[in-house]
Amino acid sequence: MIPDSLTQIQYDTVYNVFSLVIASQLFTAIFIIVSLKRILPRYRQAMTVAAIVCAIAAYHYFRIFDSFKAAFVTEAIGGAGDYVQVAGASFNEGYRYVDWLLTVPLLLLELIAVLALARKVQTSLLYRLIPASALMIILGYPGELSGDNAVRGIFGLLSTIPFAYILYVLFVELTKSLDRQPASVRRTISQLRLLLLLTWGVYPIAYLLPMLGIDGSDAWVGKQVGYSIADILAKALYGLIIYKIARMKSFADDPAFARLELSVDEADEMISSTNARRN
Amino acid sequence: MIPDSLTQIQYDTVYNVFSLVIASQLFTAIFIIVSLKRILPRYRQAMTVAAIVCAIAAYHYFRIFDSFKAAFVTEAIGGAGDYVQVAGASFNEGYRYVDWLLTVPLLLLELIAVLALARKVQTSLLYRLIPASALMIILGYPGELSGDNAVRGIFGLLSTIPFAYILYVLFVELTKSLDRQPASVRRTISQLRLLLLLTWGVYPIAYLLPMLGIDGSDAWVGKQVGYSIADILAKALYGLIIYKIARMKSFADDPAFARLELSVDEADEMISSTNARRN
Repeated sequence: MIPDSLTQIQYDTVYNVFSLVIASQLFTAIFIIVSLKRILPRYRQAMTVAAIVCAIAAYHYFRIFDSFKAAFVTEAIGGAGDYVQVAGASFNEGYRYVDWLLTVPLLLLELIAVLALARKVQTSLLYRLIPASALMIILGYPGELSGDNAVRGIFGLLSTIPFAYILYVLFVELTKSLDRQPASVRRTISQLRLLLLLTWGVYPIAYLLPMLGIDGSDAWVGKQVGYSIADILAKALYGLIIYKIARMKSFADDPAFARLELSVDEADEMISSTNARRN
Repeated sequence: MIPDSLTQIQYDTVYNVFSLVIASQLFTAIFIIVSLKRILPRYRQAMTVAAIVCAIAAYHYFRIFDSFKAAFVTEAIGGAGDYVQVAGASFNEGYRYVDWLLTVPLLLLELIAVLALARKVQTSLLYRLIPASALMIILGYPGELSGDNAVRGIFGLLSTIPFAYILYVLFVELTKSLDRQPASVRRTISQLRLLLLLTWGVYPIAYLLPMLGIDGSDAWVGKQVGYSIADILAKALYGLIIYKIARMKSFADDPAFARLELSVDEADEMISSTNARRN
């Protein structure tokens, strides 16, 4: 639950971290949109989705930021510089779930889309990943809202089932479809899946904290910082790695494009390395 | 620390300088994005990063501006025209650190990217510069927040180590990789490094002021003006010099492009001079 008061340092930390998320998501979105011409047209759809995901996250953090500012006022009388919760106000944690409901399926879509697999394989993967990801978010929500640890536990457990299924699809099923990707792309996809596992893993940990009795203002600040950093890594950094994959695939697909986009030395290196390692 | 009151002149000075920073950064970002077609595709990625750096800085100065306006109110009763600090309010110096955490690594990235060195050399330089620059900002932050001069001194000193390392990489290591650049580009890079040294040097000086006992409202106003001018030079002017390098390299790479972009006389001069001086 939201704490009754925050010190100046706690308040500023949350404030600055929320602002950091807004800046990271908003400018990653703009960077990707401005950079669309730096990849071949066939990968621009995936990158547009990546930019939209970051833009949606920026929008929701503007809302979260406002909700936070409205929930606390400085304790003017006494001038201690501390912040107390506005009577009756609450910090709207629900914005995060609305954000995830939109962005998490899109994060999986951008990953599959950038690989440009055969249409049948793409469709099959997406029909499994997208409903599972929506289910994961929807099942977590009632637990987040409930003050009851038993309810929280049950919905947390239910939500973990589609999460485990997503990991199975990404780490087992997807691997079978990667044999036609250049080796450098396969390596980057492995890093991307690891990033996804580590950052998505932050959410269940934050979800568990109240059940472990870790509460109070420090835990609350820690949770907000944890969610924020996980959101930056899982959307902005993730989008930039997808962009890197789209660049590598563009150069591998079309050496003439690589020569336009890279210096002579770089283009030669890139072309020879992707050709040599391609299966 | 933030002063208890400001005179009308002090208040207006800070207000106008913050507005100057917003205008400089925002319109440099727009100028660079609109001008992307004035350079060859291979340099557009570096220039997009330069534009994003200025846009991120503009965003943070909007926030700093709002934080400043919220921290002071005019003392209406008495009508002295002076501004007093709002009870319990604080000017959020933390925004600067959030800004630098994002922009300083990107400033180094745009410098290396525009040189279009061989991929191995680029990677090696960036793997050293980017972590060092993030470390430099992160180590400065606890000192900035602390009211204790000893803590400030320790973190200031720790933060200087990665700064010195960055200067070493830029002035010693980078020089070894410049032999294939046109002579005019090498000269401009030397100017750019000097600008970086001079503008980045402002930050440790401002950081030291409270330790030297220079405090009070004049010192605070001086610090805000100093940071602001350093930010304009280190991001907007720096980005424009990188743009100049990208233009020179574009013309050297492709005389046909130079003939499109320049007058006949200019193009002839440019082409003959870059060819003559190229190693």
